[in-house]
Amino acid sequence: MREVVYLRPEELPRYYYNVLADLPFELDPPLDPQTRQSVKPEQLLRIFPEPLVEQEVSKDRFIPIPEPVLQEYALYRPTPLIRAHRLEEYLGTKTKIYFKYEGTSPTGSHKVNTALAQAFYNKLVGTKMLVTETGAGQWGSALSYAGKKFGLKVKVFMVKVSYEQKPFRKSLMKLFGGEAIPSPSTETEIGRSFPEDHPGSLGIAISEAIHTVLQTPNAKYALGSVLNHVLLHQTIIGLELKKQLELLNIQPDVIVACHGGGSNFGGTVLPFVPDVLSGKKLRIVAVEPESCPSLTNGQYTYDFGDTAGLTPLLKMYTLGKDFVPPAIHAGGLRYHGASPIVSKLYHEKLIEAVAVSQEKVFEAARLFATLEGIVPAPESAHAIAHVIDEAKLNENKTVIFTLSGHGYFDLNAYV
Amino acid sequence: MREVVYLRPEELPRYYYNVLADLPFELDPPLDPQTRQSVKPEQLLRIFPEPLVEQEVSKDRFIPIPEPVLQEYALYRPTPLIRAHRLEEYLGTKTKIYFKYEGTSPTGSHKVNTALAQAFYNKLVGTKMLVTETGAGQWGSALSYAGKKFGLKVKVFMVKVSYEQKPFRKSLMKLFGGEAIPSPSTETEIGRSFPEDHPGSLGIAISEAIHTVLQTPNAKYALGSVLNHVLLHQTIIGLELKKQLELLNIQPDVIVACHGGGSNFGGTVLPFVPDVLSGKKLRIVAVEPESCPSLTNGQYTYDFGDTAGLTPLLKMYTLGKDFVPPAIHAGGLRYHGASPIVSKLYHEKLIEAVAVSQEKVFEAARLFATLEGIVPAPESAHAIAHVIDEAKLNENKTVIFTLSGHGYFDLNAYV
Repeated sequence: MREVVYLRPEELPRYYYNVLADLPFELDPPLDPQTRQSVKPEQLLRIFPEPLVEQEVSKDRFIPIPEPVLQEYALYRPTPLIRAHRLEEYLGTKTKIYFKYEGTSPTGSHKVNTALAQAFYNKLVGTKMLVTETGAGQWGSALSYAGKKFGLKVKVFMVKVSYEQKPFRKSLMKLFGGEAIPSPSTETEIGRSFPEDHPGSLGIAISEAIHTVLQTPNAKYALGSVLNHVLLHQTIIGLELKKQLELLNIQPDVIVACHGGGSNFGGTVLPFVPDVLSGKKLRIVAVEPESCPSLTNGQYTYDFGDTAGLTPLLKMYTLGKDFVPPAIHAGGLRYHGASPIVSKLYHEKLIEAVAVSQEKVFEAARLFATLEGIVPAPESAHAIAHVIDEAKLNENKTVIFTLSGHGYFDLNAYV
Repeated sequence: MREVVYLRPEELPRYYYNVLADLPFELDPPLDPQTRQSVKPEQLLRIFPEPLVEQEVSKDRFIPIPEPVLQEYALYRPTPLIRAHRLEEYLGTKTKIYFKYEGTSPTGSHKVNTALAQAFYNKLVGTKMLVTETGAGQWGSALSYAGKKFGLKVKVFMVKVSYEQKPFRKSLMKLFGGEAIPSPSTETEIGRSFPEDHPGSLGIAISEAIHTVLQTPNAKYALGSVLNHVLLHQTIIGLELKKQLELLNIQPDVIVACHGGGSNFGGTVLPFVPDVLSGKKLRIVAVEPESCPSLTNGQYTYDFGDTAGLTPLLKMYTLGKDFVPPAIHAGGLRYHGASPIVSKLYHEKLIEAVAVSQEKVFEAARLFATLEGIVPAPESAHAIAHVIDEAKLNENKTVIFTLSGHGYFDLNAYV
């Protein structure tokens, strides 16, 4: 019988975990591009609501999850931890493989975890409209859903190549009342500066979203990855996972997650960073696409979060704000940078990173779909591809990965 | 917090329930169209494997689920029973609403339950290829998955209008190695007898599939609904549901399921028929589309299961084998007939039936998606539409329905 670990609804974590409280070093602060001085929190208030700016710089170890957000989480959380027995059998490995499955969320990925929190805090301070960007559409659909739940309008600049490849994610946004606009668009000056046949990038879409917010009263910007408060909300994944591993009485040897901007990766692994710091034998591995290798092939330097240079400068591993990744199907991983927290952890060698080819990722996805009966999102399949490599070492270890979403909307990529 | 009832893996039912053992009347037998005599089981062996023919006519109350099928069920079963709290709140009703959710299966609907059993028994007797038809693609993708699991080729005649409307279900079949052919096709004489722009129907697709089986060595036919053995395999839904209701200590007042050929409906309700027979106050309601109202507007008579008249004559509620339903999106409910078991139960007034409009169904689906965070398949949304009507009566009752699948592949219908 399949080994599945559920938690009871009352075991749902009631606090997010803030790794900044436990790091033995400071993050390099965001800089104002004009003055090269630290950005003051107040400067962020034009685009983010105050409670999220507070979270962005907080050093509190535990930050309570508001009751209305908990109520929404309860519709799909706690998510299950599942043993990938069939995959183990197929590989003939001694290694035990478990995956934390986030695909049971209302829009099919982990993105809803932070979307709900962001929509809630924005509603609290009187925001009327949220503007954002999306790659594959997972973030855009999650924010549309969250906006619907908390009564906010949602406008989404969607990377054009994904807009064309993912018709169903557009429909999902529309179902929840979100408006999707292909980026580069004709709605902003930045968008119009690119040729009509430009495939788009997350960097450009972020610029268009921020530009729109700056020109619209009562509108705020929402980001689905990269920033501290986004990773904070996603720690609910790792916190549940810790409880589930305790129930199984398992000490993981390796934790693996795919890495784009860092929200799924950070959400999964940050609660385990204190274990690494305390000297436990635990490896943490970020898996990114060969075609967009920000950690494994980027520079650790200050760079803009967007292409037009509207954001503060962030210290991160980056391929450069003008990097336009090839049109791979894992749209959620097509970002030029990496979150400052993840970047710092990588720089301090507390975590590892590997890059895998699209071919290997799709092969892993097809294999997993057949063996385990779940079609993984191409993003999540990056983790699977690497987990297979770990399992092939045939060591007596336990490898955990996050399956951050299902691939029902990405099927045309696989066949 | 959300009320969800899981069963432990070891609580997975190990027997299918055969309602024929408990009915106080006999079903009218299938007839040979030439002789108008009862079809002998042997006559079915050309298109079905022996174990399934035995199940088709069995009177045993409990039929063991083979271990390899149980192992496959364990990848996604037992499925959860979930309280629809938000829907109740929204309707302001005293009525309690629960739904059994089958959308967590590998292909997103209940169809996998019988697909796995049919593939297993076919493999057992040496079948090399399964041929079938599919409407919306739920059955075709389920059989493709099951074929992949048990090492059988799968060929699927897909109703043309759905083939064109549901590109992702085609991809899902392909992912699992199934071959999808739009029907009417040019592959069979029957297919060629229809004009090129014919939208197709399940009746025509069944004819094409059976015709292909009759001409292909080691090929068998697989049907996703209507027949006794199909409903038998689906009783795993109702058997789990019974256990879950016992855990909750709930006596349901009304059980609701959508009705096309009868597999989801029968699978859900047949284990409750003895309760009705023993005089318990329990209403069982089948919900069908206004545009294809076989129970509510059909004749109870002998008719062919397919358009070309290749099947035996079945005693059932039917709109006539030549009925071509309009191109509604709930492709899984576009069948001219109803299963003989369900037809007999309806004729004997042990169950009720209602028809609902597409408009009302889509409205219910959008409402449910937003409130409960699950996008329902259009088929399943028929049940929701009627449950809302039941809840609006505002009686102190418990209404249960089966959400037979998710609607991620049907999003273009809703927006």
